Amino acid sequence: MADQPLFERVALIGIGLIGSSLARVLKRDGLAGRIAIADASAEARAAAVRLGLGDSVTQSVAEAVTGADLVMVCTPMGAFAAVGEAMAPALARGAIVSDVGSVKQAAIRDLGPSIPEGVHFVPGHPIAGTEHSGPEAGFAELFQGRWCVLTPPAGTDRRAVEKMIALWSAAGSMTEEMDANHHDQVLAITSHLPHLIAFTIVGTATDLESHLQQEVIKFSASGFRDFTRIAASDPVMWRDIFLNNREALLESCARLSEDLAQLQRAIRWGEGDKIENLIRRTREIRRKLIDAKQA
Amino acid sequence: MADQPLFERVALIGIGLIGSSLARVLKRDGLAGRIAIADASAEARAAAVRLGLGDSVTQSVAEAVTGADLVMVCTPMGAFAAVGEAMAPALARGAIVSDVGSVKQAAIRDLGPSIPEGVHFVPGHPIAGTEHSGPEAGFAELFQGRWCVLTPPAGTDRRAVEKMIALWSAAGSMTEEMDANHHDQVLAITSHLPHLIAFTIVGTATDLESHLQQEVIKFSASGFRDFTRIAASDPVMWRDIFLNNREALLESCARLSEDLAQLQRAIRWGEGDKIENLIRRTREIRRKLIDAKQA
Repeated sequence: MADQPLFERVALIGIGLIGSSLARVLKRDGLAGRIAIADASAEARAAAVRLGLGDSVTQSVAEAVTGADLVMVCTPMGAFAAVGEAMAPALARGAIVSDVGSVKQAAIRDLGPSIPEGVHFVPGHPIAGTEHSGPEAGFAELFQGRWCVLTPPAGTDRRAVEKMIALWSAAGSMTEEMDANHHDQVLAITSHLPHLIAFTIVGTATDLESHLQQEVIKFSASGFRDFTRIAASDPVMWRDIFLNNREALLESCARLSEDLAQLQRAIRWGEGDKIENLIRRTREIRRKLIDAKQA
Repeated sequence: MADQPLFERVALIGIGLIGSSLARVLKRDGLAGRIAIADASAEARAAAVRLGLGDSVTQSVAEAVTGADLVMVCTPMGAFAAVGEAMAPALARGAIVSDVGSVKQAAIRDLGPSIPEGVHFVPGHPIAGTEHSGPEAGFAELFQGRWCVLTPPAGTDRRAVEKMIALWSAAGSMTEEMDANHHDQVLAITSHLPHLIAFTIVGTATDLESHLQQEVIKFSASGFRDFTRIAASDPVMWRDIFLNNREALLESCARLSEDLAQLQRAIRWGEGDKIENLIRRTREIRRKLIDAKQA
């Protein structure tokens, strides 16, 4: 007799990089009896059908959600409130609703009000991704060795949380539970600010006089190239992240601007010691990363 | 009868990442009859001896330079003026002096006055490197497929320039001749500004409250990690680059600060269209890099 799958029916709402990678994990490990996919984009739905990512593919969130014991919301965050409203009437009692959004307070704000009594809400954030997007970009190993942060509100059913831990463990991730507010502060620094800076610096380069711009491309290997890779990420996803983690991000930006002004001043006034001290300090962080096996 | 080597005696002043990588190229391809190494650091000299990077290793710049038909200055830029003074009396007529400094106007300012009549000065900048430093970090393939920019002042002997092109071609590099001022503007954007920003953002993170800092390390894979790699570069080398390309760097910084302020404002006021447009523009640059085979 075959083992019971972890979930009977999983609804994946949004079949981009993360959703399609999850679909591949679910299939590979037989974690779902059935996979129902909903996506607003006809192109994404066609790709999902072509790639055989699920048992059904539909435009209707309510249809995908009906009968699901796990609903994973994998759309850009700007769509969360609308997805919540669309799925609410169709959610089965005892089901788990989770998501993969990068800002957890906003996920709770936008999806929370649509979760009926008797449905378990376990917000999550797999810290994994590439600069590519769309259903074709997904792969089952995306989550291997990466962290997934879960931010269940106080009082969330433990069995629901444990089932999500089991899912992410099967995907190869380490999981950590955290307060949503704390998550958003940490990610503002580790992810949102670096992306914001990468977009900005690449944007600054695109505004250069055209003769300079050609050479920026030619000599990009000297540092700039690393920023362009980060800056190639999905525009809608990142717009939504920036707008939804506004407070923590602007706070991080303010700190960065102060530090940048201080360094500019040291350069202007030729204060070599100050510059060298800063660079020495940043090396320490790299060493800590290597010690923590995150380098 | 064996071919004549490209140079009879090469003096490498400074045996760090670049100098030691050059030594390995010279040896591998038999480009130098003799390699004379000078370095101010006893530790670096000991490593050069242990690794067998040259035929002689000394603390004295004048001693290494004596009888050399090529002198390559590979120290941090802050040492250029002193190196110039030390080598001037020992330079042989007809010798070539070159360097690998990242700011060409400063190289010309600091080395130029020490070049006697009858000695050829061909400043150069191999756009290659890693975040590691020191003689052990070097390897012969470092320059393979990378650009080397030469900025010979007007009127420089063509045969001297051609010999430098031959050397860098043997190392596997493509070469380009350019005005020193133009080089410094291009590198300010492609290299110096990205490094300055990486140091700043990693510095901002090191100032965080300690409970946040641990989690920044743990979740660094979300973007921050890429910056720490850039920010692990050599402190003295980068201090000297920042101080020596001050004008072009502060100009780039000013443009970046304006663009950053504009993006912060768009986030604060929830202007999604502006944010999305910026991110879409940055994707274009990445595409151009891929087209130019620099991605």
